Amino acid sequence: MDSHISDPRAFQDQVLDLLQAFGTFGKTAEGGYSRLAAGPEEKRARDHLCGWLRDHGFTVIIDPVGNIFGVLDLCVTDSERAFFCGSHLDSQPNGGNFDGCLGVVCACVAALFLKERIAAGQVHPAFRYYVVTCWTGEEGARFQPSLIGSSVFSGALHLEDAWRLRDGDGILLKDALQMTGYLGSGEAPRPDHYLELHIEQGTELERAGRAIALVEACWGAEKLRVVVTGKADHTGPTPMAQRRNALLAASHLVVEIEALAQEARETLHSSVGRMVLEPNSPNTIVERAELWIEVRSPSEAALKRAAARIDESMTTISRQSGCDLAVSSRERRSVVCFDETALEDAERALADAGIGPLKLTTIAGHDAVRLQSVCPSTLLFVPSQNGITHSPLEFTTDADVRAGFEAMTAILARLISRPAGARFKENDR
Amino acid sequence: MDSHISDPRAFQDQVLDLLQAFGTFGKTAEGGYSRLAAGPEEKRARDHLCGWLRDHGFTVIIDPVGNIFGVLDLCVTDSERAFFCGSHLDSQPNGGNFDGCLGVVCACVAALFLKERIAAGQVHPAFRYYVVTCWTGEEGARFQPSLIGSSVFSGALHLEDAWRLRDGDGILLKDALQMTGYLGSGEAPRPDHYLELHIEQGTELERAGRAIALVEACWGAEKLRVVVTGKADHTGPTPMAQRRNALLAASHLVVEIEALAQEARETLHSSVGRMVLEPNSPNTIVERAELWIEVRSPSEAALKRAAARIDESMTTISRQSGCDLAVSSRERRSVVCFDETALEDAERALADAGIGPLKLTTIAGHDAVRLQSVCPSTLLFVPSQNGITHSPLEFTTDADVRAGFEAMTAILARLISRPAGARFKENDR
Repeated sequence: MDSHISDPRAFQDQVLDLLQAFGTFGKTAEGGYSRLAAGPEEKRARDHLCGWLRDHGFTVIIDPVGNIFGVLDLCVTDSERAFFCGSHLDSQPNGGNFDGCLGVVCACVAALFLKERIAAGQVHPAFRYYVVTCWTGEEGARFQPSLIGSSVFSGALHLEDAWRLRDGDGILLKDALQMTGYLGSGEAPRPDHYLELHIEQGTELERAGRAIALVEACWGAEKLRVVVTGKADHTGPTPMAQRRNALLAASHLVVEIEALAQEARETLHSSVGRMVLEPNSPNTIVERAELWIEVRSPSEAALKRAAARIDESMTTISRQSGCDLAVSSRERRSVVCFDETALEDAERALADAGIGPLKLTTIAGHDAVRLQSVCPSTLLFVPSQNGITHSPLEFTTDADVRAGFEAMTAILARLISRPAGARFKENDR
Repeated sequence: MDSHISDPRAFQDQVLDLLQAFGTFGKTAEGGYSRLAAGPEEKRARDHLCGWLRDHGFTVIIDPVGNIFGVLDLCVTDSERAFFCGSHLDSQPNGGNFDGCLGVVCACVAALFLKERIAAGQVHPAFRYYVVTCWTGEEGARFQPSLIGSSVFSGALHLEDAWRLRDGDGILLKDALQMTGYLGSGEAPRPDHYLELHIEQGTELERAGRAIALVEACWGAEKLRVVVTGKADHTGPTPMAQRRNALLAASHLVVEIEALAQEARETLHSSVGRMVLEPNSPNTIVERAELWIEVRSPSEAALKRAAARIDESMTTISRQSGCDLAVSSRERRSVVCFDETALEDAERALADAGIGPLKLTTIAGHDAVRLQSVCPSTLLFVPSQNGITHSPLEFTTDADVRAGFEAMTAILARLISRPAGARFKENDR
């Protein structure tokens, strides 16, 4: 058994190099990244990932919703358990290179770390497989909803329903996967643990002066699509009183959605991030507006009140505008708490490594939130500078990337050593 | 000289047949028509027009902005004057088959009527040329502004500026013209009179129970494009107070634009017909919104007040939203009055034909409004059912089409007989 142990910085250098390699795919003129789910730029990033995995001895499995699983057999004879580690490669339009990509890159390099430690006899894995995972359509940018791949994998979304999703140009997700070569037929092992490193997309770490956060829970969300139907007519001669202007009604709704957050008794975030207008021609009154609305809160009661108030606003706006307002889809995402035992284990591993993590609640959804419904999941954050994300300004320093990889591998080494059904006791540390 | 005079209904039948023939180009699933300027569907309609013109002995000229001129030499030896008659073939997205197309069709068939009357010695033309005209990009749907072809022809817009216009996909008008074969190099004769028949796009004719209107004037307009710049970020974790949401600011502006019309002391119409959002992704705060705003009024003072109030609203919204709001283009269209002598002549011609026209002011702009700046122009309306236009519901009855053609040819026969510089006297009737 080769007992050579690399300098920790050598693996961290590989993380930074691999991150830079992914940074060549989908770069925009503004310095951001557009790697939309199942699009040509994301395909190049996915191809690069698959190449890297094969080069490093992984078996690559693509499932029917395009999730990529790089399976490494750790040759543990008395277990069939699988330890998953990953994130996503798709981005927002003109987003950053850290959101998702960093987690995939760290999962890759962590395998090299793991192999070395196992070979040196420093880690004794209790899982047979280590699986690097890249989930399809996490962002909800090109195809809605978000978290598509992890939702299908965890059973929250039917495969056939996912295949039927259409992007803004009417292209089916199934066809987009086929066109890019990622409509697979493989079946991954089932996960027994999932670990994900992600950027915070907030400022709590920065304000606390820390580099690592362990995520305890995720806010709930109410996600709606509302269709406003008015009547197309000439913007010139049509008398003002006769107009049924879908854009005017939609604008009132946008203002109401903002007011929800301003007037809520409990913490609540609200937004309309996408709106599609028809015919969207300067001389024609807008006939149809579709709005993608979301409300997020740590309180289920607050979400319920917000949903009721949106319904009331729609009724009022409909009466005042003469337009029809209807909910075309509605998704309620419950508040999710991460596995407590896994959290305790992660904290101990970090303490052993001399790392004092912040404990946070995430507002943004992540694949780890979906995975928590099928196996204990651990979500780890590193800082995002000024909290900015989904923007070319998204940035995490090299030092924070290095610290994130160090923390993640400390947690990985501990969790992957844990026997099935066992609990580490205090004196196991 | 062949003195055969056809039954007037025979020409009217040809108008209805030719209108139906154009109705095969660009038909949509909803029963409307999408023949966007310099697009493939409009190209088919344009090709059909050119074929018809050549088949009927016209010389076809395409100019550098894609205007089509079908020139018929009436072999008048003592004149070089040209009588223009036409409209446009482009439509709104999912618009109707009457807006523009009816005027082109009537201009075509009117040539056959004219030839017969000249041959029969009933009309003695004082113009050498009769020119059927199809103007490029009247609608302002694919390329803005509206009235592109007639604006270049009349000198209100530079050819190079028109060529540089881009559609929503960034395609240059010049390239779109070239791709469809309508980037010409021909030069048309200069017009000495312009006659256009159009649908009313309002309900005044319907309410008055009349079939024909003569247009006396056109409202002025203020057309602006406003760019709202916020900051892209995650719709989840970003604290509400830190957001610079371009869609929220744009929505407030849409509501203010509507209020302009509601609160104006004088008649004023206002609208936002088009808005483009970036990145327009459900999980990202809208960073950029561009709004196509227009305000129309018969009062120049009211337009000036409205423009000032838009500026004030932009300042207020910018302060409240943290977004930057800037006017990226501004076009003022003055109130235009049609040539009075031509109006009197047209009225007399209609009176002789037993037709009592309504006299109207148009709110919508038309190519005839642009042409009035270079030659006396006459604009004629027929009813649009329920005033609906820019919609699959746009409709004009066969009876009104027949009446429109009858009125137009009566006016044509009189105006084309008028010697240069002369005025018909009362006893010329």
